[in-house]
Amino acid sequence: MILPEPSLRRLPWYLAHVKLLMENSVEFVSSTQIAAATNVDASQVAKDLSMLEISGKTRVGYEVASLVEVLEDFLGFTKCHKACIFGVGSLGGALMHDSGLEQYGLKLVAGFDVRSDIVGKEINGIKIYNISEFEEIQKKEQMVIGIITVPVDKAQESADIMVSGGIGAIWNFTPYKIKVDESVVVQETSLYAHLAVMFNRLNEK
Amino acid sequence: MILPEPSLRRLPWYLAHVKLLMENSVEFVSSTQIAAATNVDASQVAKDLSMLEISGKTRVGYEVASLVEVLEDFLGFTKCHKACIFGVGSLGGALMHDSGLEQYGLKLVAGFDVRSDIVGKEINGIKIYNISEFEEIQKKEQMVIGIITVPVDKAQESADIMVSGGIGAIWNFTPYKIKVDESVVVQETSLYAHLAVMFNRLNEK
Repeated sequence: MILPEPSLRRLPWYLAHVKLLMENSVEFVSSTQIAAATNVDASQVAKDLSMLEISGKTRVGYEVASLVEVLEDFLGFTKCHKACIFGVGSLGGALMHDSGLEQYGLKLVAGFDVRSDIVGKEINGIKIYNISEFEEIQKKEQMVIGIITVPVDKAQESADIMVSGGIGAIWNFTPYKIKVDESVVVQETSLYAHLAVMFNRLNEK
Repeated sequence: MILPEPSLRRLPWYLAHVKLLMENSVEFVSSTQIAAATNVDASQVAKDLSMLEISGKTRVGYEVASLVEVLEDFLGFTKCHKACIFGVGSLGGALMHDSGLEQYGLKLVAGFDVRSDIVGKEINGIKIYNISEFEEIQKKEQMVIGIITVPVDKAQESADIMVSGGIGAIWNFTPYKIKVDESVVVQETSLYAHLAVMFNRLNEK
């Protein structure tokens, strides 16, 4: 089911909250409680959760353990999505170090770069290849997600190489708006754009 | 000037493009060219740029060097915003390694954690303190931005400590929706929420 992006972005908040409850051995939770904890309108929480295959019980609410399972499953965090990174610089290398991603369903299987001082090395057990080896590795690994952390002037080229190798979704961390065929999913996470929004709001205070 | 968030998020795309032009010694650029390069509607680009203190010349467009300067200045990238990180784990440590942030106006001056094996150490020349030392360091450094990369169950507590020390803006990388006074700017960058959106779109294909 295609959910509107705002709903999809709220579900991980609910999940974070109910996972905390589970760790604290809480058995049931109501949408009103989730709403209070996540600062979202209660009717919105109920509406978001109604799109999942779970229903709460009158008066007690949702079973916490089941809700965690349904949310993780729905969000795709329990599947293994194979991914690679183009650009093993400071941010790319950092993402390879972040073991948290695997717990959320993203399994990095390869890094790609052009710098001879890092090609052939490993970070966190993940090997770094030359970008020219992408096609060969992709045939073997069948990666579905490509992460772009290259310099801005290499972003489009990286995307093109990924798409020609059959990558289905691109996670773009550069502030460059890449252009790809509509059939390819693009997720923009420009840290610098977020910084700009934050600075602007801060300077208005 | 408070710009709508979508405009603020587009400006870094324009900036990335005109910086590339500057590196390639291009002198002038029109809003139509920027529109084509960034895949944004031309009238939207013109409207976004009209909010800046710069005007293009008939037929030749904007002077590239001036446009870079005006955009960087407007976005706050030329100012120095002092910042700290709460939670020097895998993602927090990674952000401390990312020297790119300083070029965009974010100067990390301290990391905070509670783990005795990392408190007292440095990453990229930035010292890591115990969270209990925050008040003291904050008196000296007067940091304005606090980055949260702690585990979910410590996110609210971290935000509270930051706000009580006078932090004006919080950059929250956890999937927990923190609650703070309205006067505090909060920027959410949950990588896992972005993952969820990407997985959902991918699985619908």
